[in-house]
Amino acid sequence: MSEISADQSEREQKLIEDVLASFGQTPDARLKSVLESLVRHLHGFLRETRLTEQEWGRAIGFLTAAGHITDERRQEFVLLSDVLGASMQTIAINNEAYANATEATVLGPFFVEGAPEIEQGGDLSFGAAGQPCWVEGSVRDTQGKPLPGALLEIWECDQDGFYDVQYAGEDRTAARGRLRADEAGEFRFWALTPVPYPIPHDGPVGALLAATSRSPMRAPHLHFLVKAPQMRTLITHIFVEGEELRKGDAVFGVKESLVRQFEQQAAGTPTPDGRDLGAGDWARVRFEIVLAPADA
Amino acid sequence: MSEISADQSEREQKLIEDVLASFGQTPDARLKSVLESLVRHLHGFLRETRLTEQEWGRAIGFLTAAGHITDERRQEFVLLSDVLGASMQTIAINNEAYANATEATVLGPFFVEGAPEIEQGGDLSFGAAGQPCWVEGSVRDTQGKPLPGALLEIWECDQDGFYDVQYAGEDRTAARGRLRADEAGEFRFWALTPVPYPIPHDGPVGALLAATSRSPMRAPHLHFLVKAPQMRTLITHIFVEGEELRKGDAVFGVKESLVRQFEQQAAGTPTPDGRDLGAGDWARVRFEIVLAPADA
Repeated sequence: MSEISADQSEREQKLIEDVLASFGQTPDARLKSVLESLVRHLHGFLRETRLTEQEWGRAIGFLTAAGHITDERRQEFVLLSDVLGASMQTIAINNEAYANATEATVLGPFFVEGAPEIEQGGDLSFGAAGQPCWVEGSVRDTQGKPLPGALLEIWECDQDGFYDVQYAGEDRTAARGRLRADEAGEFRFWALTPVPYPIPHDGPVGALLAATSRSPMRAPHLHFLVKAPQMRTLITHIFVEGEELRKGDAVFGVKESLVRQFEQQAAGTPTPDGRDLGAGDWARVRFEIVLAPADA
Repeated sequence: MSEISADQSEREQKLIEDVLASFGQTPDARLKSVLESLVRHLHGFLRETRLTEQEWGRAIGFLTAAGHITDERRQEFVLLSDVLGASMQTIAINNEAYANATEATVLGPFFVEGAPEIEQGGDLSFGAAGQPCWVEGSVRDTQGKPLPGALLEIWECDQDGFYDVQYAGEDRTAARGRLRADEAGEFRFWALTPVPYPIPHDGPVGALLAATSRSPMRAPHLHFLVKAPQMRTLITHIFVEGEELRKGDAVFGVKESLVRQFEQQAAGTPTPDGRDLGAGDWARVRFEIVLAPADA
């Protein structure tokens, strides 16, 4: 903090106390304590930076622009939270590590309820373009016991970096699906090999990234949401090991334990289910999922 | 902070360091340091409150609603800043007390550029309803030297608590005006006796006030913006001493030094300029304005 007089410091502190006191009659104890912490940190930020009135005005303008670009398909406040690491911090706080359970990462803005169900060995690309990728694995508890019937939701972008909900003027489902683990807790399906893509960066969050020399790119990944009775719901990705991963991730989503080798297969290599890919190459990956108990 | 393991705490701390590092290449040193402070306080807030994913979702929803209600005439983010005391804190930081200079307070969302000029002794109500109030005073520097020609902008709500920009479907100027101090640095004009009024509370900020048992009412006040060459521009109010003042102020704008007796005058009491108010009562107040030097 800049050098300020004791009188000045006292006036600033007194204001914080007045604001805290104004929330003193809040009936909900949790809301009261969250607001108290918010007020302390907000005023702490203003005092520490000695924020000018012009800067405050620019911050109001930023939030206003974020509000105005936000609609049913675009959520700029989630993007802002993502690039400030606030989304990952919230996930870290609410999904504490438990034994060998698979780690969580960001949900992101592209999950959609009601994705189409696919069979074991089915293809969730639904016509989205990209390199075919065979994904297989298992869902178990931390003791190694299989979890038959566990529900898996999987979604990803196409080879151009777009999720189906970003297709302009189209209302089409692609590169997403749901399936259930079999009696052995195993699953297998065709998807697309993940590619890097930028988060939407034509709005205020994109301007913030540009002003701070940050890349809007996300490391290539495949999204999973996994549910089973009595288990903590897992929201995670697997990341593709390689050069693109090492360029970083705009939303701080990468965890070492979630990085996988996506093994490239030359054209003509026999596929696990006998599918004929003609002259096309493909990839394969395995993901052993471990769920923590719901009460962990 | 709740009891958390050393491992968990280390993971949360590591994430903060990663986010800070991501801003390491920001070309503008001021932007860099403001963002670093923001990241530390934002993550500090999340960790301290152990914010849940549902609560984070509600916060995103609150900001989204604030963005959607904001337009050219309604600024919900300014209201939010006001009710959290952030506006007053920014003013306190940027307008440090200087000798006997008049203290600053919030600008508020109702100032409009280009208000009509009035003569000395003129009436700025322009037909807005309310009790007539004679306002007189002087503009001086901290040595007591008059500042002839100082520009004063004055604005206020009408007796129903509405500023002209809030008149639905009307584009009319009322209860605002500008005038210049005379050669002796003195000013005098007719305005309206200020009344209490609620800040706009039909949006998310109003819901926040309701959930925390806080009143949306502002203490009755008259706005001033005062400019003179080589002087620090002063944005302030005078507040009406009395019962309404003691009920508090939703935006924390009241400072003891800005409270004035508005002296009630019975109907028939002769007015200072001989104006005939018929059977109406009126009020009068005096405000000695002292400007700090621009470089203070």
